[in-house]
Amino acid sequence: MKTLIKGATILTMNDEIPFMGDILIEGDRITDIGAEITADADEIIRATGMAAMPGLINAHQHTPMSLLRGFSDDLKLMDWLDKKMLPAEAKMTPEDVYWGAKLSMAEMIRSGTTTFADMYINMNEIAFAVEEVGMRASLTRGLIFLAADGGRRMNEALDLINRWGGKADGRITTMLGPHSPYTCPPEPFIEVITLAEKLNVPIHTHLAETKEEVIKLRDKYNQTPAEYLYHIGLFERAHVLLAHCVHLNRRDIGLLKGMRGGVSHNPVSNLKLGCGIAPVFDMIEQGLTVGLGTDGAGSATTVDMFEGIKSATWLQKLDYGDPTRLPASQALRMATRESAKLLNIADQVGTLEIGKRADIILVDMLKPHLQPIHHIESLLAYSANGGDVDTTIVNGKVLMRGGQLLTIDEEQLYKEVSSRAKRITEGI
Amino acid sequence: MKTLIKGATILTMNDEIPFMGDILIEGDRITDIGAEITADADEIIRATGMAAMPGLINAHQHTPMSLLRGFSDDLKLMDWLDKKMLPAEAKMTPEDVYWGAKLSMAEMIRSGTTTFADMYINMNEIAFAVEEVGMRASLTRGLIFLAADGGRRMNEALDLINRWGGKADGRITTMLGPHSPYTCPPEPFIEVITLAEKLNVPIHTHLAETKEEVIKLRDKYNQTPAEYLYHIGLFERAHVLLAHCVHLNRRDIGLLKGMRGGVSHNPVSNLKLGCGIAPVFDMIEQGLTVGLGTDGAGSATTVDMFEGIKSATWLQKLDYGDPTRLPASQALRMATRESAKLLNIADQVGTLEIGKRADIILVDMLKPHLQPIHHIESLLAYSANGGDVDTTIVNGKVLMRGGQLLTIDEEQLYKEVSSRAKRITEGI
Repeated sequence: MKTLIKGATILTMNDEIPFMGDILIEGDRITDIGAEITADADEIIRATGMAAMPGLINAHQHTPMSLLRGFSDDLKLMDWLDKKMLPAEAKMTPEDVYWGAKLSMAEMIRSGTTTFADMYINMNEIAFAVEEVGMRASLTRGLIFLAADGGRRMNEALDLINRWGGKADGRITTMLGPHSPYTCPPEPFIEVITLAEKLNVPIHTHLAETKEEVIKLRDKYNQTPAEYLYHIGLFERAHVLLAHCVHLNRRDIGLLKGMRGGVSHNPVSNLKLGCGIAPVFDMIEQGLTVGLGTDGAGSATTVDMFEGIKSATWLQKLDYGDPTRLPASQALRMATRESAKLLNIADQVGTLEIGKRADIILVDMLKPHLQPIHHIESLLAYSANGGDVDTTIVNGKVLMRGGQLLTIDEEQLYKEVSSRAKRITEGI
Repeated sequence: MKTLIKGATILTMNDEIPFMGDILIEGDRITDIGAEITADADEIIRATGMAAMPGLINAHQHTPMSLLRGFSDDLKLMDWLDKKMLPAEAKMTPEDVYWGAKLSMAEMIRSGTTTFADMYINMNEIAFAVEEVGMRASLTRGLIFLAADGGRRMNEALDLINRWGGKADGRITTMLGPHSPYTCPPEPFIEVITLAEKLNVPIHTHLAETKEEVIKLRDKYNQTPAEYLYHIGLFERAHVLLAHCVHLNRRDIGLLKGMRGGVSHNPVSNLKLGCGIAPVFDMIEQGLTVGLGTDGAGSATTVDMFEGIKSATWLQKLDYGDPTRLPASQALRMATRESAKLLNIADQVGTLEIGKRADIILVDMLKPHLQPIHHIESLLAYSANGGDVDTTIVNGKVLMRGGQLLTIDEEQLYKEVSSRAKRITEGI
């Protein structure tokens, strides 16, 4: 199967200047990019007036929480968690998880995300949804060791890795997911690191999302959350995806220098929960890899990465009182190339390059808010939203075209999620 | 002409709980709202799966700056202004102003804005565009008295008021626009206030957008910008629309108490220029009216009010480290009812009520990011974007239906703005 995209403005995210041209896809790969490609294609996608860029990579998600979108906004963090999220999640069945994940995937495909890193429970159901829907994902079973069923969780985590790693035409990769410094004591955390080394999988964890976490760790270990992870050897021994890193001090950032992997910045969730502004500029200055994520829709409400791109730039400008901080092109790279590095799949996706997997989105620029085109990167970073994505391609397969989802029945989806959401939240 | 909207979820923005129902429009007015209306209508708009709410009111715009959208992002404020915006604006012809305004209007109609407050030059051209396109607007000729041509500007300001006030079926109102404390010395500012009293028009001005302004005023008058306006009698004598108010201290807020009009909060512009966070929560606590605006696309890039709604809530939560600050419903009211008060047209628009003008938008909720519906206000505030607006009605006339603009030829628009933008920015 050969697909030819014709006449797009191409942003490779490889530090090249955007240019007009064509992209040839053969099977699951990009086999040519250039000003004008003539090839016998099975399908030609006319992309005049569109921007072609790598699919966005959401580096931190809890996909099934879309079922709880808007269920408990505007509450104190602990009320949000204890009175709403946890009781509702306790009522979620594996089938609910499947449908919630699928709802998130529908939103992600519509808004130009092609890959996501997910941490949740019932990961088997999510893997089935990924396989069926056609997205790329790095799946992680969340591990909390304060709870009595830590053992069962470890089995499920191993089962996920054995069963799904490399599956779905290579679209599924896996990680191990010790939840956070404050929910995982040193001993089991170190066991997970040893296992990650043995299985050669990365580790996905939360770090320093809230001030409260910093206080907890200080009281318990007399360490910052970053010091805690450093001292148990995490950064030395594993490729690590750190979600949040809002409350890192300069010394903490120093401890992360040289790590494999990096940080998923999740600005919308941090804003909506009132957590604070992550020191993104400082982390990048210190050489850390910083990608972008949304967090689950339970906190962020939307998982549209374009909102994350905008707000990431805004927050650095705000924090330093300096509009030159985190310019448009850098934010777009965070959402693509840098996020790919976090997921340890930068050899496959994150830029448009010959030989890489064909994960490509087309953004329709013929909209009033995307005209005139002085600098296309400014428009994509500061003005575009998920609704402007016309076409989403993953692994060479078209998942959306002209705003129509091709692998998800939306009517059925809305019916399912409405009735399930109602049942889950009843009486809470 | 009778138009009947059937089966929408109606948010009146009048402190009522959202409900399913119908809205009847006769001529330019809402003549009935209820659970089920049976009426002989000339046109029936089926709104199943849609939210009906008052059109959004953008309380601070410089519409023609859309021609410079994305032209000078990521620059220091003074570089942005002196090296890019001012030289480019100096090259803009009256015809450019017309097309730039129209481009902003296309974006606003598409993203659910029905009314805007505009301050610019060549207002005659903007008024023609408003008349033609069908939006509602409060138009103001910006007045800067440091410049030598203050006299001509005053004539143009008066001409605008005389010629256009109440025109276009009452859709156009006017204000007087002394630009800011730092560009208008006391004497001419007081003259403008006297004129506003005489002509019975409100005053639209900028206040305390940047720290630099605060320093300038201190050095020149030994006053804060708010003290300056207070002492020349502005708040006592006129209905005032104050744009920004980022750098107000507690005493400043006290000086504004009891004023007619209020504050347009423009969070996206404040973020993008790194200005800071306006004390919105404190101002509302003190009884001030706070509405929402975008500022011009030259700074904000997008004039989608849904971005303003999201970021307004986010910033208050961030500033206080408290996710309960500025909840969804309040942000939606800021963008509708409160903004209407600022423009002194709250008797006509801003809520859905029998007898008010029919300025209504329909938002398509059958999108993955707007499902499931636990709390529709949360979804509209935190997840919706301009692209979700299906239908935009102003003064009873449908300006967009099913995402199709009915009063603007978009193909022609994009051609005009592209060539004009190129000419204006060439060599800058």
